[in-house]
Amino acid sequence: MTDINRAIEQLEWNREPRSLYEPVEYTLASGGKRLRPTLAMLASQMFEGNDEDVLPAALALEVFHNFTLLHDDVMDRAEVRRGRPTVHVLWNDNTAILSGDQMMIEAYRLLSGVPEEKLPKVLRMFNDMATGICEGQQYDMDFEARQDVSLEEYMNMIRLKTSVLLANALQTGAYIAGATEAQQQRIYDYGINLGLAFQIQDDLLDVYGDPATFGKATGGDILCGKKTFMLLTALHTATPAVREEIEAHLSATDTAQHKIASMTAIYDRLHVREKAEEAIAEYTGKALECLEALPHNDAAEALRNLANKLTNRKI
Amino acid sequence: MTDINRAIEQLEWNREPRSLYEPVEYTLASGGKRLRPTLAMLASQMFEGNDEDVLPAALALEVFHNFTLLHDDVMDRAEVRRGRPTVHVLWNDNTAILSGDQMMIEAYRLLSGVPEEKLPKVLRMFNDMATGICEGQQYDMDFEARQDVSLEEYMNMIRLKTSVLLANALQTGAYIAGATEAQQQRIYDYGINLGLAFQIQDDLLDVYGDPATFGKATGGDILCGKKTFMLLTALHTATPAVREEIEAHLSATDTAQHKIASMTAIYDRLHVREKAEEAIAEYTGKALECLEALPHNDAAEALRNLANKLTNRKI
Repeated sequence: MTDINRAIEQLEWNREPRSLYEPVEYTLASGGKRLRPTLAMLASQMFEGNDEDVLPAALALEVFHNFTLLHDDVMDRAEVRRGRPTVHVLWNDNTAILSGDQMMIEAYRLLSGVPEEKLPKVLRMFNDMATGICEGQQYDMDFEARQDVSLEEYMNMIRLKTSVLLANALQTGAYIAGATEAQQQRIYDYGINLGLAFQIQDDLLDVYGDPATFGKATGGDILCGKKTFMLLTALHTATPAVREEIEAHLSATDTAQHKIASMTAIYDRLHVREKAEEAIAEYTGKALECLEALPHNDAAEALRNLANKLTNRKI
Repeated sequence: MTDINRAIEQLEWNREPRSLYEPVEYTLASGGKRLRPTLAMLASQMFEGNDEDVLPAALALEVFHNFTLLHDDVMDRAEVRRGRPTVHVLWNDNTAILSGDQMMIEAYRLLSGVPEEKLPKVLRMFNDMATGICEGQQYDMDFEARQDVSLEEYMNMIRLKTSVLLANALQTGAYIAGATEAQQQRIYDYGINLGLAFQIQDDLLDVYGDPATFGKATGGDILCGKKTFMLLTALHTATPAVREEIEAHLSATDTAQHKIASMTAIYDRLHVREKAEEAIAEYTGKALECLEALPHNDAAEALRNLANKLTNRKI
């Protein structure tokens, strides 16, 4: 983790025009968990690869991830990210669009630093991942205007928007380190399931989390009527009468506090929390299962701990 | 040209979600000169390369070019492109941003289809070109708010925004076909100079062009006070009194017709048209000179004709 942070700090953004590169620097200096490069490094270590071979791809993934956040924040009109004003707020929309474009290019530039014989496949996998994320973001936006989103569609959306990047980080690390196709597939699947568990956990914490440890105010998803695992599960389990009740609450011009309290009460009655916890346990279990047939070593242990830690975040 | 158009038509966009891919398809179906892929193919043919080896890169360049137009139109609030409503007008800003992102990824996907042993350098050159274009667009936007833009800064901006993509198309085609470093550099320089001549020609036509052949109404640059070769040359040659006159015209809340007529009269008095024509001739000459030391064959002849045709467009 320290190495990755140091490597990110060492990326050189002191270039002209400053108006293009300052927002890039600002975005990458905002911290975050550096989860994706960590996964790439651990996957490489699991197969006894060299850290320096995978580092360019690990950095590319972090820069790409931050690019998606930058553009998503413009599209979602989000004003705060990791406790700081977003780029389009601090500068403007055009700067956010163009600096984001430049970050995507920087991601590809970093990626091109992997060992040459590995580049063609690494690039292909990266492109597929990047396309998946765009498709996931588009579904997410499309869902806002739709009232008939199924839980299955939702799971596919979060697979694309969250899981494929984690899975790609892991597969890329494993591939560069020399893992077999079957091993790459297993560690990819570990990432997919980890991402699903992680996103459902995020949806759960938005309702039941402790704002102090969750890092942001709870109830945000309820207030904007976001189709989360919680809401879709509630709508799916509810009787027609309760369904109407939910829809009334969501469209009511109520106080924020009352809206959150009413929806939480419905979630309580429908045991949505338990259903979310079951789903998290299921996907975490699947993720851990994927690790079984892979080498058992320190890196594997770290990935196991990561799965447990990420999906049992303190509520 | 026909082959390139056919290859672009054969790109498959019939994927989900439609809301992501329809704008991509719409953008690529809008035609245009297909100049960049044509340059890549001609450069390859000059060095007796195989068309199919360079085609993936040629298509990547066309998709990338169209991506830049899509995002530029959002940033510039342009409502019409090639006679049709722009994507952000027909759909919305978010769709334009995300479909543009997806087009950039598609460009990299196409690029990855070049012969594997050529991929590392092709990718590096592509990244440098893409960064140049972002920097050029940023300078272009920065110039809007500045009153002290020099002609030198302007030439650097159009080199980045227009020339490097043409130059990259040519170098990529030549490199894949097996040209030497020195030959690649010459054909790259041909592209740089061609792009400069082409852009100054565009600035000239915005004032003196015939709307019927120019393809859009003239005077657009004058109305939005854009820092073009024409305006910067005028400001550079003008006496302090005429300079004040220009600034008064540009800030006046005059009718469009009157503003255009007044500025054109000043350009006439300062012989800006002749100065632009001299610059066009100079850069076209330099471009043609670059071709001298390269193989003389049909492809070279086509590049020579292109330079003459592009920069002697009917006024």
